[in-house]
Amino acid sequence: VEELSGQSRAMSAPEREEIASIVGDAHLLISPGDLAPYARDAVEGLESFPSAVARPRTTVEVSRLLAFCNQRGIPVTPQAGRTGLSGGAVPLFGGLGLSLERMDTILEVDTRNLVAVVEAGVLTQRLHEAVGEHGLRYPPDPSSRGSCTIGGNVAENAGGPHSARYGVTGRWVLGLEAVLASGEVIVTGGKTRKDVAGYDLTALLVGSEGTLAVVTKAWLRLVHEPASVAVIVAPFPTLEQAADAVVALHSQGLVPAACEFVDRASLEVSARRKGISVPFPEAEARLIVEFDGGDDAEVERDVTRAGEIALEGGALDVLLATDPPRRRALWELRSGIGEAVRDLGPSAELDLAVPRTALAQLVRGVRRIAEEAGLRAVSFGHAADGNVHVHLYREGSAAPDLFQRTTTALYAHAVSLGGTVTGEHGVGVTSRAHLHLQRSPAYLAVLRAIKEALDPRGILNPGKLLPESPAPLR
Amino acid sequence: VEELSGQSRAMSAPEREEIASIVGDAHLLISPGDLAPYARDAVEGLESFPSAVARPRTTVEVSRLLAFCNQRGIPVTPQAGRTGLSGGAVPLFGGLGLSLERMDTILEVDTRNLVAVVEAGVLTQRLHEAVGEHGLRYPPDPSSRGSCTIGGNVAENAGGPHSARYGVTGRWVLGLEAVLASGEVIVTGGKTRKDVAGYDLTALLVGSEGTLAVVTKAWLRLVHEPASVAVIVAPFPTLEQAADAVVALHSQGLVPAACEFVDRASLEVSARRKGISVPFPEAEARLIVEFDGGDDAEVERDVTRAGEIALEGGALDVLLATDPPRRRALWELRSGIGEAVRDLGPSAELDLAVPRTALAQLVRGVRRIAEEAGLRAVSFGHAADGNVHVHLYREGSAAPDLFQRTTTALYAHAVSLGGTVTGEHGVGVTSRAHLHLQRSPAYLAVLRAIKEALDPRGILNPGKLLPESPAPLR
Repeated sequence: VEELSGQSRAMSAPEREEIASIVGDAHLLISPGDLAPYARDAVEGLESFPSAVARPRTTVEVSRLLAFCNQRGIPVTPQAGRTGLSGGAVPLFGGLGLSLERMDTILEVDTRNLVAVVEAGVLTQRLHEAVGEHGLRYPPDPSSRGSCTIGGNVAENAGGPHSARYGVTGRWVLGLEAVLASGEVIVTGGKTRKDVAGYDLTALLVGSEGTLAVVTKAWLRLVHEPASVAVIVAPFPTLEQAADAVVALHSQGLVPAACEFVDRASLEVSARRKGISVPFPEAEARLIVEFDGGDDAEVERDVTRAGEIALEGGALDVLLATDPPRRRALWELRSGIGEAVRDLGPSAELDLAVPRTALAQLVRGVRRIAEEAGLRAVSFGHAADGNVHVHLYREGSAAPDLFQRTTTALYAHAVSLGGTVTGEHGVGVTSRAHLHLQRSPAYLAVLRAIKEALDPRGILNPGKLLPESPAPLR
Repeated sequence: VEELSGQSRAMSAPEREEIASIVGDAHLLISPGDLAPYARDAVEGLESFPSAVARPRTTVEVSRLLAFCNQRGIPVTPQAGRTGLSGGAVPLFGGLGLSLERMDTILEVDTRNLVAVVEAGVLTQRLHEAVGEHGLRYPPDPSSRGSCTIGGNVAENAGGPHSARYGVTGRWVLGLEAVLASGEVIVTGGKTRKDVAGYDLTALLVGSEGTLAVVTKAWLRLVHEPASVAVIVAPFPTLEQAADAVVALHSQGLVPAACEFVDRASLEVSARRKGISVPFPEAEARLIVEFDGGDDAEVERDVTRAGEIALEGGALDVLLATDPPRRRALWELRSGIGEAVRDLGPSAELDLAVPRTALAQLVRGVRRIAEEAGLRAVSFGHAADGNVHVHLYREGSAAPDLFQRTTTALYAHAVSLGGTVTGEHGVGVTSRAHLHLQRSPAYLAVLRAIKEALDPRGILNPGKLLPESPAPLR
């Protein structure tokens, strides 16, 4: 990031006044103290201050802000909950931080069409609760759901444990209202469930990380809460047995609602932090598998079969949790890993994904590569999706270039298994330099061509997603 | 279409020789007799001959063909099963018809990752059978599945009855190999289930109707065949009651695998053609609702509940079909409608979709508008998705502009209900002039900008999807 800092765009007093005239003085932040929270997201050690932050309340205000910044060439970094793990919300080039936190109205929960209409700044957890009151569910559940927003989830195409059965954010988005770099507003869909009238701009904007448009509103599909839920935990002596069991579960026709993988090291740090002792501490890997369904019999059938498959695959035991408190405790242990590993020391975090059958190879390779570099690695994540979060760390200090060299080797390893450099966290800053390992020059040229078509002046979230010098499109 | 015919691009003898040198003489068609099948798809009265048709066998051949045509400015119309209902495969500007019919290899059915890898020319039905041998299912089931191909389904983002539960083609595509206008080949994904490394080009290409790239290969997700399936048929005295029952089923938490709507007129023509007499001929509308699940008990539970809801909603009866022959007969009656209505006389076909709750309003409006124009309308389709196919006809002759005026009014009616001018058939030629009813100038400008970014010379499927003169992107 250092090489970019000299290019940071400051704003003149008249520019700030113009922006204040759009959002109101109270919603233009300029003091270093006010700006500090907007200089970071959840990526360790990455900080870059915006010159100012605007907090618009309406789509019209967003439109006027973008039209003005586009005209003046002011970089705009859209900001949501700033919980991202790829640096997507960090204003690398200064300019304007555009926080949608005040656009946080749940406009409608349409229980007849099973659609929620929300402003982009709505906290994901708040939407979960609002639709839950109607017995409904918005399935995407990133672990930051208490502080991330729908707009951020759309920008990153966020996942979560339940994407095993329910898919990631994009599957639930029926339509978006978004503001283009020019300030023009487009609406890409609505409550209609099937629509092939033109290129699928909804899908193009989902996961575009704020580089093509600023999403201001979303139409989201909902489902009914399942009538019955149960979770099993299966500890395995070896990593390979756990990974094989994941493949066996799915290839024998079961569809878990969630199917999480936790290695020994990651469970240890989470359990230690929470002061819990876990059974079978010697197990190298654990699966946490959730089933849901229309009644208890259906779930019991699936849980029983899953337990049999796990035991046939060498599980040391299969522990069942049907009551909500036990299920909650299990999930807290799992979701606590992300935070706990950050206490371990200087670290780097990766978000690798591979075909489900390559899970064991991925994790084994991660260990070997880390070990050879004198680093330690914990691995955990969404096994059904082949999506593994790797936390690479060293007790005590470590040269930054050691992390850099090692992460490059890990990215290359995932790609060599047919995988991706990012399964759900986004490219942002952290994976941008490695995108070429996975994507061909022709592919990257298409990304650049689309970016230039939609944001010709390059004001939207500069420095994110796109590698710096792709080959021009022929 | 008439206004375009003068612009048809013929090919010179040296150009034809160059193309023959790529695909081999046997696979370059030039005689009128050979070309005739490639001048049409399933749209009545729309015919335009290509100057030649090439039938490549490999992606390398497709790449060389496109590079050559791009250099010479020869229009290329990608062709799949030519079963489309929007004219997408008709070579409006002459030039080269690019038929992928020889690229029809099922490369792999990966039962451990639940992924099929297929060339674009594989017939959809053949894929169904191939994965069926492993107890697996590729869910998208357009009614033309016996003659359409995966490449065509991807290009149109095809739906079908089972998209009620399983979604349309796009949901099942994990990755594509595609050839850009320049001849460059990109791969957008593979067997990895979660991937946010760059804009979602898979989703952008799905439904792009061959205007952005030529899809040559696809990685498709599979699921296990359900262990149990049952279908109920519920005749209703009125349209409104049937439509309300669709909303009630879903808002009470049921998720039918399919939920089809058939009005009286469309059932009559299909039954007459098949020589079947149906019970409750006086019913204005029928729902055909399929449930599937992991065992009989689960399906019985859902069917029972659905039957109760239908009867509470005024159904005259609820007929159950669990055995395969009866289920097949029912589906044949339903899928026969499309063909049967074409025998009725001069006609126009629309593919409207609205929010589920607007279904009754849509169909009522369709009848009123048709009646006022002195035309008749039959309506049938995918009720769960609010997707209704309208077949507009007149016994005896009718002025073409009467159909044109009336279809415009019908499109506007669907849009006024929050709907779309095409739910699953694609824009192609037939809905292109009406896209502006639904999409704003800013939206259309984005489509045009993307098209220009990926196909700057405009060789790929010209005259399709994009309205002629969108406003330039600012």
